[in-house]
Parts: sequence; C-alpha cells; structure tokens
Amino acid sequence: MRTAPETDLAAPEPAPEPAPDLETAEGLLARYDEVRGYTELLAAPLSPEDQTVQSMPDVSPTKWHRAHVTWFFETFLLAEHESGFAPFQDQYWFLFNSYYEAVGPRYSRPLRGVISRPGAHDVGLYRRNVDDRLRDLVARSDDGTLAKLRPLMELGFHHEQQHQELLLMDIKHVLSLNPLQPVYAGRPAPGPAGGPGEPDPLGWVGFEGGLVEIGHRSEAFCFDNELPLHQQWLPPYRLADRLVTNGEWLAFIADGGYRRPELWLSDGWARVQAEGWEAPFYWRETDGVWHEHTLHGTVVLDPAAPVCHVSHYEADAYATWAGKRLPTEAEWEHAARIAEADAGPANLADLETFHPRPAGAPGSLRQLFGDCWEWTASAYLPYPGFRPAAGAIGEYNGKFMSNQMVLRGGCALTPPGHTRATYRNFFPPGARWPLTGVRLADGGAA
Amino acid sequence: MRTAPETDLAAPEPAPEPAPDLETAEGLLARYDEVRGYTELLAAPLSPEDQTVQSMPDVSPTKWHRAHVTWFFETFLLAEHESGFAPFQDQYWFLFNSYYEAVGPRYSRPLRGVISRPGAHDVGLYRRNVDDRLRDLVARSDDGTLAKLRPLMELGFHHEQQHQELLLMDIKHVLSLNPLQPVYAGRPAPGPAGGPGEPDPLGWVGFEGGLVEIGHRSEAFCFDNELPLHQQWLPPYRLADRLVTNGEWLAFIADGGYRRPELWLSDGWARVQAEGWEAPFYWRETDGVWHEHTLHGTVVLDPAAPVCHVSHYEADAYATWAGKRLPTEAEWEHAARIAEADAGPANLADLETFHPRPAGAPGSLRQLFGDCWEWTASAYLPYPGFRPAAGAIGEYNGKFMSNQMVLRGGCALTPPGHTRATYRNFFPPGARWPLTGVRLADGGAA
Amino acid sequence: MRTAPETDLAAPEPAPEPAPDLETAEGLLARYDEVRGYTELLAAPLSPEDQTVQSMPDVSPTKWHRAHVTWFFETFLLAEHESGFAPFQDQYWFLFNSYYEAVGPRYSRPLRGVISRPGAHDVGLYRRNVDDRLRDLVARSDDGTLAKLRPLMELGFHHEQQHQELLLMDIKHVLSLNPLQPVYAGRPAPGPAGGPGEPDPLGWVGFEGGLVEIGHRSEAFCFDNELPLHQQWLPPYRLADRLVTNGEWLAFIADGGYRRPELWLSDGWARVQAEGWEAPFYWRETDGVWHEHTLHGTVVLDPAAPVCHVSHYEADAYATWAGKRLPTEAEWEHAARIAEADAGPANLADLETFHPRPAGAPGSLRQLFGDCWEWTASAYLPYPGFRPAAGAIGEYNGKFMSNQMVLRGGCALTPPGHTRATYRNFFPPGARWPLTGVRLADGGAA
Amino acid sequence: MRTAPETDLAAPEPAPEPAPDLETAEGLLARYDEVRGYTELLAAPLSPEDQTVQSMPDVSPTKWHRAHVTWFFETFLLAEHESGFAPFQDQYWFLFNSYYEAVGPRYSRPLRGVISRPGAHDVGLYRRNVDDRLRDLVARSDDGTLAKLRPLMELGFHHEQQHQELLLMDIKHVLSLNPLQPVYAGRPAPGPAGGPGEPDPLGWVGFEGGLVEIGHRSEAFCFDNELPLHQQWLPPYRLADRLVTNGEWLAFIADGGYRRPELWLSDGWARVQAEGWEAPFYWRETDGVWHEHTLHGTVVLDPAAPVCHVSHYEADAYATWAGKRLPTEAEWEHAARIAEADAGPANLADLETFHPRPAGAPGSLRQLFGDCWEWTASAYLPYPGFRPAAGAIGEYNGKFMSNQMVLRGGCALTPPGHTRATYRNFFPPGARWPLTGVRLADGGAA
Repeated sequence: MRTAPETDLAAPEPAPEPAPDLETAEGLLARYDEVRGYTELLAAPLSPEDQTVQSMPDVSPTKWHRAHVTWFFETFLLAEHESGFAPFQDQYWFLFNSYYEAVGPRYSRPLRGVISRPGAHDVGLYRRNVDDRLRDLVARSDDGTLAKLRPLMELGFHHEQQHQELLLMDIKHVLSLNPLQPVYAGRPAPGPAGGPGEPDPLGWVGFEGGLVEIGHRSEAFCFDNELPLHQQWLPPYRLADRLVTNGEWLAFIADGGYRRPELWLSDGWARVQAEGWEAPFYWRETDGVWHEHTLHGTVVLDPAAPVCHVSHYEADAYATWAGKRLPTEAEWEHAARIAEADAGPANLADLETFHPRPAGAPGSLRQLFGDCWEWTASAYLPYPGFRPAAGAIGEYNGKFMSNQMVLRGGCALTPPGHTRATYRNFFPPGARWPLTGVRLADGGAA
Repeated sequence: MRTAPETDLAAPEPAPEPAPDLETAEGLLARYDEVRGYTELLAAPLSPEDQTVQSMPDVSPTKWHRAHVTWFFETFLLAEHESGFAPFQDQYWFLFNSYYEAVGPRYSRPLRGVISRPGAHDVGLYRRNVDDRLRDLVARSDDGTLAKLRPLMELGFHHEQQHQELLLMDIKHVLSLNPLQPVYAGRPAPGPAGGPGEPDPLGWVGFEGGLVEIGHRSEAFCFDNELPLHQQWLPPYRLADRLVTNGEWLAFIADGGYRRPELWLSDGWARVQAEGWEAPFYWRETDGVWHEHTLHGTVVLDPAAPVCHVSHYEADAYATWAGKRLPTEAEWEHAARIAEADAGPANLADLETFHPRPAGAPGSLRQLFGDCWEWTASAYLPYPGFRPAAGAIGEYNGKFMSNQMVLRGGCALTPPGHTRATYRNFFPPGARWPLTGVRLADGGAA
Repeated sequence: MRTAPETDLAAPEPAPEPAPDLETAEGLLARYDEVRGYTELLAAPLSPEDQTVQSMPDVSPTKWHRAHVTWFFETFLLAEHESGFAPFQDQYWFLFNSYYEAVGPRYSRPLRGVISRPGAHDVGLYRRNVDDRLRDLVARSDDGTLAKLRPLMELGFHHEQQHQELLLMDIKHVLSLNPLQPVYAGRPAPGPAGGPGEPDPLGWVGFEGGLVEIGHRSEAFCFDNELPLHQQWLPPYRLADRLVTNGEWLAFIADGGYRRPELWLSDGWARVQAEGWEAPFYWRETDGVWHEHTLHGTVVLDPAAPVCHVSHYEADAYATWAGKRLPTEAEWEHAARIAEADAGPANLADLETFHPRPAGAPGSLRQLFGDCWEWTASAYLPYPGFRPAAGAIGEYNGKFMSNQMVLRGGCALTPPGHTRATYRNFFPPGARWPLTGVRLADGGAA
Repeated sequence: MRTAPETDLAAPEPAPEPAPDLETAEGLLARYDEVRGYTELLAAPLSPEDQTVQSMPDVSPTKWHRAHVTWFFETFLLAEHESGFAPFQDQYWFLFNSYYEAVGPRYSRPLRGVISRPGAHDVGLYRRNVDDRLRDLVARSDDGTLAKLRPLMELGFHHEQQHQELLLMDIKHVLSLNPLQPVYAGRPAPGPAGGPGEPDPLGWVGFEGGLVEIGHRSEAFCFDNELPLHQQWLPPYRLADRLVTNGEWLAFIADGGYRRPELWLSDGWARVQAEGWEAPFYWRETDGVWHEHTLHGTVVLDPAAPVCHVSHYEADAYATWAGKRLPTEAEWEHAARIAEADAGPANLADLETFHPRPAGAPGSLRQLFGDCWEWTASAYLPYPGFRPAAGAIGEYNGKFMSNQMVLRGGCALTPPGHTRATYRNFFPPGARWPLTGVRLADGGAA
C-alpha cells in the first residue's frame, strides 16, 4: 500500500506560472481564437436541426450554447469597455442570458428549444461580430485596460470551455432520443485489445490524511468556488486505483442492485421507482445483449470500460453494495495533488474518444483527470470564508450551492486545459445525462 | 328579413360531377403533383430550424407534417399496392404515424420536436422517393387497380390539404413565441381602406327550418364523418350575416367579459382563471395599443376585421354577453346550402392574406367559407347510422368524437378546394391556436 | 318486436298534479322534514372521521354535503326572505358554497378535506338552526310569500336529494381506498337465487320514432335543463331490454376489450393507458376470483348483476365491441315515456340494496329507473331555446354544459321520488366513481 | 468578546449517568407510561375530525402519529420478543409503517388522510392493547431479555418524542388552512411586558475553534447519526447570542428581501417565484397589520419574538442580506457544549407556550435549546465512519442523508428531555411548516 507523505500542510508550492501569452494582447487574442474556434469545431458535425433541439429542460440547444458564450463576452467585456457599445441585437440580450438575474430579465430556460431564430447560421454571424469587436477592443487597449480585461477574458475562456463540455453532453442526449440512432462523430474508445475486454482487478491507494490544505493556492486561474485555501482534518483513507467498470456494474445489477431498497438513499429509491431505473442512463438490453448509446452510435457494452451516466444515487447505492463508500471531495483533492505527478495522459476531448476507456496499466490512481467526472460524498457548499465576486459575475457559482453534489476530475468531453486538482464540478444527485462515473473509497473513521 | 325556402327536404340536387381529371391516371397524377407541390410551396419560407420546433404538444414541426403526409401515401397506397414494397426507411414507419393504432406502435406526439433527424432536407428526399414510386404505381396500373387507388389517393389529397392548414396554424404558434417577432410571409389583409377600419353594422338572415336533410349527398369526395345523409328537425332561426369583429370584442373586454364568471361555461371560467386569459390568444397590448401576432408579423389590431384565435369557451361567453348564442352545426349547414350560391370569393390560402379580413358589402351571409373557422354549439358526435371505414383508415375521424366541438366553414389558411357546406372540422373547446372565429345565432326555440 | 305508437307528438298528457301537500305551509314543512331527515339517516352510520375525508377532488366529505345543502336553504330562502337575516356563521357562507360565483368567493373544492372544523357534530347544529329558522319563516308567511318560497323550497328538496345520492357515491369511494375494507351499511343485493347467477338472454324493444317531443311537459317540478319542450326527429331504433351484465363484461375483458385500441374513442384509449384500466372501477381480482367493492363490503362478482362503475369511454368501447351503440338521450326519453307504465318497482335507495341487482323477468324495458345511471351517446348541451334562471340559481345547470355526457334513468343510490323520464343527469366521460351502467341500442340510421 | 477554551479536544467528559430507573423493569415501564401518556395528552384537545386530516403530503394525521408510534413498539419489540406474537390487526402492519422497507410494503404516505378507519377511538384501543402486552412482556422478562429490550425501548421513547413534536407541527398546519382560525391550546407566549415588544440589540459570542471533537461521547442515548465521535478543524468564529427576531425580519422585507434575487440561492429564488413567498410561512397582513398563525390562534406579530417558520432558503437569504452567514453544525455543536452550562431553562413543550418567545436577558448564547430549531449551513451527511444499525432499525436515519440541511437546538414543541448539543435534526431546505428559526454566524475564514 502506497502511503502519502505525512502532511502536505506546510508544503510550500511553487506558484505555477500563468501561461505567458496571456500577459500580452497578442497572447490573449491567440487564446481567444483557440477557445472560440474549438466551440465551432465541436458544433461543425451538427445540422441546423440538431442545433435547435432541446430534448429536456436540463439540455440546451447547440446554437444556444454557441450564442450564450458569445453573449458572455459581449455582456461582461464589450458592454463594460467598448466605447459607444450597443448590443448586436437587443433581444439577444434577453434570449442568451442563462441565469444572471442582475443583467436583467432572461428567457425561460425550458423554452430554449422553441426559438427557431436566430438559426445556426445567424448565430455564426453573431459570433463573428463579437469576435471582431473584441479583437478590436483588445488591440486598442492600453496596459491599464488590458489588466482589467484579462481576468474577465480568462473567465470567458473557462466559461466557454464549460459550455463546450455541456454542448457534447447535451447533444448526446438529443441524439439518444432518436430512433434512427444517429452518430455525432469521434472515434470509438477501444477496449484493451480493440474490443470489449475484462476489467483488471481493483487496487487501492492509501493516504494518511491529517491536517491538510484544501483549495486553490497558485496565481493561475481558478473559479471562485475553489477559494479560499483552508485547512481540513482528514482521517486516514484509501481510494480505489481506477473507476468502477461496466463489468462490475453488471454484477451489481445481477445481485438485485436496482431492486433492493436497503442499498439506496431514500430520495434515490423514490427515483428508482418513479422512473423505473434498471440500469445506467444510456444502457439498453437488446436480444439479451447490453448496449450503450455513445456519441459514435450505439455500441455493445465493454465490461472493462468505466460505467458512466450514473446518478449520485446510483453511485452511492453501488458503494453501499460493495461495502465501500464514495470519497469526500477533500479526500479526492488531497490524493489528486499527491498522485497527479504520476498520472498519464488523460482521456479528454482532444483525444476525440468522447467516451471513457478502460484503465491503463496499474501503478497509481488511474483515470483521475478524464474519462468520467467522479461523484463525491460531499454536498456542494461554500468553503469557509467563501465570498462570491461583486456584481453579476458573482452569480457564477455561489448561488448554486444547494441540493447539489460535488464531482471531481474531468471527463472524456472536457476540453484539455480545463482540469485541475481543485476543480469543483457539481450536479444534482439525480442527474444522469452528464458523463459521470464512480471511484470507491474506504477508511476515514476517526 | 330574408327567408329560406319552405323546405329543402325533397329538393333533388344535381350531383356535382367529380373533377373529370381524377378519372384518368394522368388526371390523378396532375392533381397529386398539384397538392404535393403546394405543401412544399408553403414550407419554402421556413428554415431548417423553423421546421424542427414543436412549440407545444398540439403543434407539430413543419418537417413532421411534410413527412407524415408522405407516410400516408406510402402506408395506404404503396404498402398495399406496390409490388415488392419495402418502406423507404423502417423507422419512418414508426416516426411519422400520427395516430393509426392499427398500423403499429407510433412515436409519442409530444416528442415530435426532439427528433432533429431526418432533417428538412432528408424529408425532401423522402417525399421525392415516395412521389416517384407513386407516379410509377399509378402509371402502371390497369383500370381495375386504378379504381382501387382512386379513393385512397383522393383521401390522401384531402388529408394533405388538412395538414397544409395545420402547418400554417402550427408555424404561426412557433413564431409567436419568439421575442424577435419573426415574419412568415404573405400579404397583410387590409382593412376596407387599406388600414384599420370600423366594423359595419351586424345584419341577420332568417331561416324557417323544418325537417331538413343534413350530410353529404353527392358523389364527390367527402370524409366519413359527413355521412350518412339524414333528417333533422330545425325550428326557425337567424344567423348573423358576418363574423364578430375585433371592435366588437374590444367592447366585450371593456365590459368585463373576461372577469365575469356568469358569462362563462364552468370549464371555460376555470381556464380563464388558470391561464390568465384577458384577450384572444395572439393579442398583446403595448403602450395602450392592441396588437395581434399574424403570419406577416405583429400588427396593430383592425377593429373591422374578424376576431380570431378565440376558444369555444370565449365564443360562447361572447354570445351570452351579446344575448345571442352560437349556431348549431345543422343550422349552419342548412343556411350555407341556401346561401352558398350568393357567396363571393372566399378568403382562403390562395389569396395569401393568411389572416381574416373585414367583411365585404352586405347582402347575404358573408365570410361563410374562409376567414375563420366558425365555432358551433354542437359537440362533435357521429351522425345517426355513422359507420367508420374498415381498417386503419377507419381511425380517421370516428375515434375523435369525444370532448370536441364542431367548427364549420373554413379559414384564411385553408387550401382552395377544401371547403364545402357539409365539412365538419373539430377542436377541443379550449383550443386557441387554430384560426377560429365567431358567428352569432338566435331564435330556434320550439 | 314491440312497436311504439305511431307518434307521441300530439298526445295530450294529463298534467300530473303537484303533490297536494306542497300547496300548504304544513305540506311544505312535512316534505322539508322528510327530505332533511333522510340526509341525516344516510349519514348516521358514518363516524366523524368517515365524514371528514375527501378521497379525491371529485369527492366531497359527508359533513360537507350535510352543510352545503343547508347552506342552499340558508342562501336562497333565508337570506332572501327572513327578516333581520344574519348568517349562522360568516365563514360558512364561504366554506359551503359549491360553485355559485354570484354568491361570492368560495372555498377551493379540492381542499374540502382539509377542513376539520366545523366537525360532524357542529354541522348538525348548523342544520338544526337553519331548520328552525326555515320552519319559522314558512309558518309566518302569508300566501303571497309562500308562493315565492314554494319553488325555491322545491328546488332545495331536489338539490338535497341529488346530494343524498352523491353522499353515497362519495363515501363508497372513500371506503374503497381503505385496506380494512370497511362496510357502510345496507343489505346485499341478491342474485336470482340469493347468490351469483347467470345473466338471462338479452332482448330488444323497437320504437318507430318520427317527430317526437322531448322535454318536460307537466306542471310538476323539473330542473331548467329539462326545458323547453321541443321536437326532434328520430329514425326507428331498438333498445336492449336490460342493462349489460357483469358476465357479459367478463366476456369483453376476455376478448381483449381493454387492450384493443380499435374499440375505443381516442380520449378513452389515452385514459386506459395512462391509468392502467383493466376492468371496471371497483373490480379486484384476488386469487383468480373477481370481486367488487360495494357499500356492504367486498363481494364476489355476480355475473347476472349489471356491470357498474364504468366510464362513458368503457361503455362506448363495449358497445363497439358488441356491434351496437349507446342510445341517444332522446331515444331513451321517448322509449321511457312509452315503457314507464309497464316498469315494475325500481331499485332505488329506499330498497337499501345500494347496488344494482339482476334484471327481473323479461317483458318490457327492465331496470329503467334505478340500478344504474345509463350512459347515453349524447353530449350534455342546452335544449333549443334553453334559458337558465336569473341570478345565482341560474348557475345550477347551464354552465356545466361542456365536456360532459348525459345519463338517464336513476340508480340504486337515488332517493325515491327523484327519477323521471325527462331527468338529465351528466358526468364527464371519464368518470367512474358514479353508479353508472350500460344499455345498448341499435338502428337509428336514416 | 467571550472566548472559548483553547481546545476541547482532550477534555475528558464525565459520562452522564443513564437515568437510573431505566436499569430496572419498573423504571423502564414508568418511563414508558410517561412518554406514552404525553402523546395522548397532546392529542386530547383534538376532535376525531382534527385527527383525521392530512393537509399536505408532508403532514400526517394526528391519529396516524398515535398509531405509528404504537406500531413501532409492536414491530420492534413485541414481534421480536413476545411469545406467540400476532399483530393486533394484520392491516395495521401495512398502514402504520412509515418508511421501513425491510418490514414489508407500506401504505402510501400522501394518502394517510384518506383512511378514516381506524378512527381516533380505535387507535386508542390499539394503543392500549400494545401497552398492555408490552408491560406484560417487560414484567415477565429476565435480566438477559431486559438487556435486549432496553435499547429498543429507549429508541421507542425517543422515536415517540420526535412524533410528539411532529404531531404539533402538523396539526398547526392543518388548523392554519381553516378559515375559522381554530385554536389548538396552550398559553400565548408573552413578550417582555406581556405584549409585543422591541428586540434587544444583537450580541456576539466568539470561539477560537481549532481541532475539535464532534459527535456523541457518553453512554447516554443518542441516535446513530450522532456517531462516531470524530475530529474536525474549526477556524475561529462567532455566533449571534440570540435568534433573529420578527422585527429584524420586517426590516429585511422592507428592504426588498423577497424581491432581490442576488440575496438568494438559485433554488430558493425559484421557490420564491413559484410559490409567491413574501413573508414567513404563517404570516398574514390584515389591514396593514402583520399577524401570525399560532397554536393558540392568530395573533398580532411580536417584533421581539424570534422569526419562525422560515425555510433554509429564507434563512440563508437573510444572512446574506445581513452580511453574515449561517453557522455550520460543527460550529453550533462546539459552541453549545461550551455554553450549555450557562443556558437557562429552555422554552420546550412542557412550558406549553408552543411558540418561540423573546430572548431573555443577555449573557451567553440565548435560546439555544428551545424556541426554534436553528438552520445550519451544513448538509445532512454521514459523519466519517458512520455505520447504520443492522436490520430495519438501520433505516432510521442514514437513508435520509441527501438533499436535507441540518438543524440544531430544539423548539417550543420539543418534549423536555429530547434536546442535546449533539442532536442532528434535518429538513429539506424548502420546508417551512417545521418550527424553524435563524441564528447568525460570522468569521470562520482560514
């Protein structure tokens, strides 16, 4: 059993240098073009009709995502700093506000799918207009202005990356409802030998805990919910060295996992019954063979690949069944800090698998950044001393700290550069359409 | 007061000759091309995104309408008569069945808007494929086969015409929800002097009634619900010589029409309160001026034009307020038979007003076939001796004879050739998105 | 085949004399005591808890019924005619108004079951107070006042009788939800030999129809919806000589009656699927034996007894399956006028079977007034020339003429004296908790 | 500023001796009679009708509470240990199981109000039967059996005490819906001078925090969710020395508290809008004067009394408005351990105020155990190393650890003897019908 260093409390951490190019106007714009272009690249395989559909209230149409991230730059940068600012289109101000109450009234979320116009092409025109004006603004800015723009642009980059991930999760749901079983794109994630394989045995990595520091500690970008850095006391604990696999989940099902109330949280069991859950979200049994819907079509289930699209309720029930538990977010972060140096290349969106793949060779904590967002046992709550930013930007994170659970890591739909040990993702415990998975933990008693 | 003939009971009616061209394969195909082409003409101004949206469960996406009417020909003609038939696409069989239980399982109606594929272009391919095969089938048929095809093709023509009207009603609703206030097409319906005018005084036309014949009586096409021809006893009655106008409706509103429960049916009052009805469906008051949403955009309300997009509940409450009542469908039909000879050219879809227009010069029953479907006081029930057709085609009308009210006439969205005195349209009493209006009646007591 | 007289059009009918005692104050009060006492008799077996429960929005608590009928006398007689009138309790004015908008705001119907107070005993005090004041008012009235009071009192008697029937239907539903299977009271309705029997063969009675008079025609009491007397044209038709039996319904079920969409109205089929209908409302299969819930407990189904607690949708589907149809209300009324002289004693509430019983010996139309309310094919609509009464009393019937179907006859829960050939009962087509049954018809084509 | 001791980590705590009488059969039975009798005392002012109503799904009828706590003793003691055990009534087994899946199927919670039988009197018979059998069982038990019975009986006592509190919260809601404004009982809680007063200034008490021990640490009874004892790191923090008052809440309302989205959690703001929240749950403004519904009727609001019946969302929004925050449960517990020695007599159910009362003289943390349950900032989650008990009893707490927030302290409806520093109460963040209030905190940053 590998052991963590006695404490990481005092460990002075060399502040990771901010990516150098963001210090200059040229660098900022290069990054801007990179991020903006990636959104369009992800949307490219989708027809105007694909980009229009909202398949359930949680899902947004692709063209809405493309417009909303543009609205973000228009609202928080151009409106504040462009001289003689006027919105590209008055009504877009209303249509593409996601949830910023301070910006003004906003269009009803569950109705995003009834707005056929602006169409996909018109959204492209909107994007180009804002791009042009933003490039112009940055190019004309003196250093003082640039210093004000920089953090907002950086927030805009990370915001757009979050929507890139959501765009993929959302279109996956849209296509899943179509009896024609359409394919988005990408290359299937192969099992070890290029086809379905068997899971390798689960290993465990131990950590001593103690009084540890939690939260973001460098000058690099982070969201406000990763702050402030603070101390927590952790009893010794262990984490599974890989994610739970489809094969293991089949054993859970075979053992009555979805029929035994004693395994479930009460709210979870109510959902199992009300919605008839019998397997993960995108699984379908056809002629006795389990398949799952992916962005590259419906494929035969690979027992070696991580189970995905399970809710927190399912993750918790599985852990109970396995005699284990889910990790807390502090345990996960502490372990990830220690293990991240050994982590291999992550399965993120740039690999274009768009799906979790079987764990590689044992050694350390595998599948840590990528494959599946990992449910934790922690409710999404503010860190001690948390203060949201002033103004509308302050609505970014804090107001969602209720009825949600934290997820850590990243997934196969996460854009590269958008993962870190301190990143706090969150979803309601019943959510199944995000690309989520399960890592087990044990220990932790006083 | 004009008086109807003593009785029309025995009146021998010259059977209107079926349109001659439908007797030949060439004629059938010419009519086929005409009807099919008109659907595409109506859909032409709509983008792929417009054609995808389902704005509420009652509404179907444009591309669904275009595919469903094609499925009708594929299912009831090709599948029965094409040698070596195979569906264009297996899943279309399932996706584009509207409600024919006997044809097999069908795709859930409220989810028509989540199916991005087939897209608008793919639906065009489907249409062309079926068109080609149908032309081929008809061209190769001998007289015996043709005799079997003819009634089904004719039903297909009328079916497609119904969906042409629905397509326009539905896209009107889709566009109405868009804050950008998009325009479909068409030429605004002018008031008498090209702008908003004043309603001319309401006149009345009297009918003696007696034992009259109701129902379709010629060899020309009709739906099964217009049969059998039968007798009904009608006391003397009068009908208003034009539709209720926006100006008159404003007086109803000003007199507390939407706030006085004593004017309303109990179910209607419940809807008024639950949904906050204060005016017809597409009316909006902006800065003290009433506007209405039309297919050519949001326009200032014309007091001389007929009120439209009111439910049966509103029509009934208005009639109660006015000290009148709605006509029964038998009264309407009997009157229309007598008056249709005098009726001028109707405001149907071919005029491309796509909106009701003020009544023309007085003289007879005006606005009878066109402008607005007219709510009657009659529940949609089978005529005595009604028998639906055998097989899936029998599901066309009969099974909807519950909880709906009959409307008569036609509207500005109805394709020409699709109106007649015996035509029975029907909608639930709370429906407001169809193009409906109100004609008053009185008399009728024993 | 028995034949109806050529026409009943001109048939002068001896006006049935009003019950003589209602002409005098003593007679009115005697009848008042009789009606009021019967309500208390029906409520007597019910505990305070039984009287409190509202098991679904359609159902009202027993003590609400007892209070509401009292409120009716207080509102429409005392408030109008008692000198120095003050309500017994201000809030009762609000709590016990059922639906009279003109009387003022009213308590929300679906919340009648959350009002624990006034309790059953307090409602008794309310009843006694109004009884005393009403007796006093009548006793002190001169002939002129008495002439004004009489029609309102008579309406109050019939109103209270309607609620006596509803009280029984409602408590039947309340008790049906209790796993303890409680018994209300009454004597079980025996089959022919004291136990379950076999249905006797169905016979038919024919009627020639023609131009017939429909509606109430005497001086005796009727509701406004039975007026005015008017003419209708009826083609020849036949009615079944008894109600459809449980045994026949079992054959319908065995033949897939609840699984074949082609038998059902579209709205009916939607309910079958949404609510999982597989048998009449109160049927339960236990260990392979069908039972039904009755007011005297759960009993084994008697194949010879009439099927009951079926919706209009089920009645219509059954008729379609049997190759027949439901009678129109005009057919029923015309036939009942002819047959009522031959009708034996009806199974009404005074027999205390509280349940339909097998038909007696053949001969004429059996089970006409009593056993089960009979669904007709007629929507509940105003007769030609219908005018509701002025004021709040006018809300009694007319405003419900939407989305409901007419039922005729009476049932085993109807108080004696509360049936007649012209009586128009009505319920929504999906209602199953009323005591409803099915009589078949055929013929009627022109 | 008062300062907490440097650390309470190592502080050895004298184990509070278990109440001596529970060691003997006599003592156990004396306590049994005491707890059981108090339930009946609380129910005594309620009529059979009052005891029957379920005013919303969260609320249970009084007679259900009385039966369910009896079922608990019958199920977990008699069924396990009585020789020749048979349930008092088979169906009660099903009807009065609240949520123990392992015990078998259970009656649907939202339908508890449709079960009129067993009535209030029959429930009394059930209680007496179980009481007799339990007394008999305990009296006959040898020491070994007694040792097994004792922890279950003690759990039964605390379980019944929880339902005593719920019974009062629930009947308060039932009566609140009645326009007659009925009174339960009890003596109004006077303001300082016997009438409405002014809030005294808010004070603060500081705590140094550090590595503290959280959780139950003695041999006395506790629920499983208070275990295990474990360590947490607390930065220094302060707690308000009294609860937020009605007067302070009026200032929050006056400052737009219910109209400013920036103060609210996103889920909270959604509830504000969906349910039209404008003030605490039981507040009503009449003629410009604020009143609140209490168990002794509707009274004029006392500005000096603690605000109550606010949700977690409201508590959080208030704290944000005040520039403060809610305490974490660990902060509360740590502070309560230090302060409890100084706490005066608590306002619990034995005082029969049944309502929070103004804070007494300043000095320490006031209103700590009693008046209102205090919302914390902590989600209800398992302590590190938490293990539920084996068997059905294990469903007591753990399965509810999702979507709920912890409350600490106690309230004016809590039975005496049912409060302690480690007690973890919990409700969903939107719950308003429990007797909840707000204590502010600040500090706590690293």
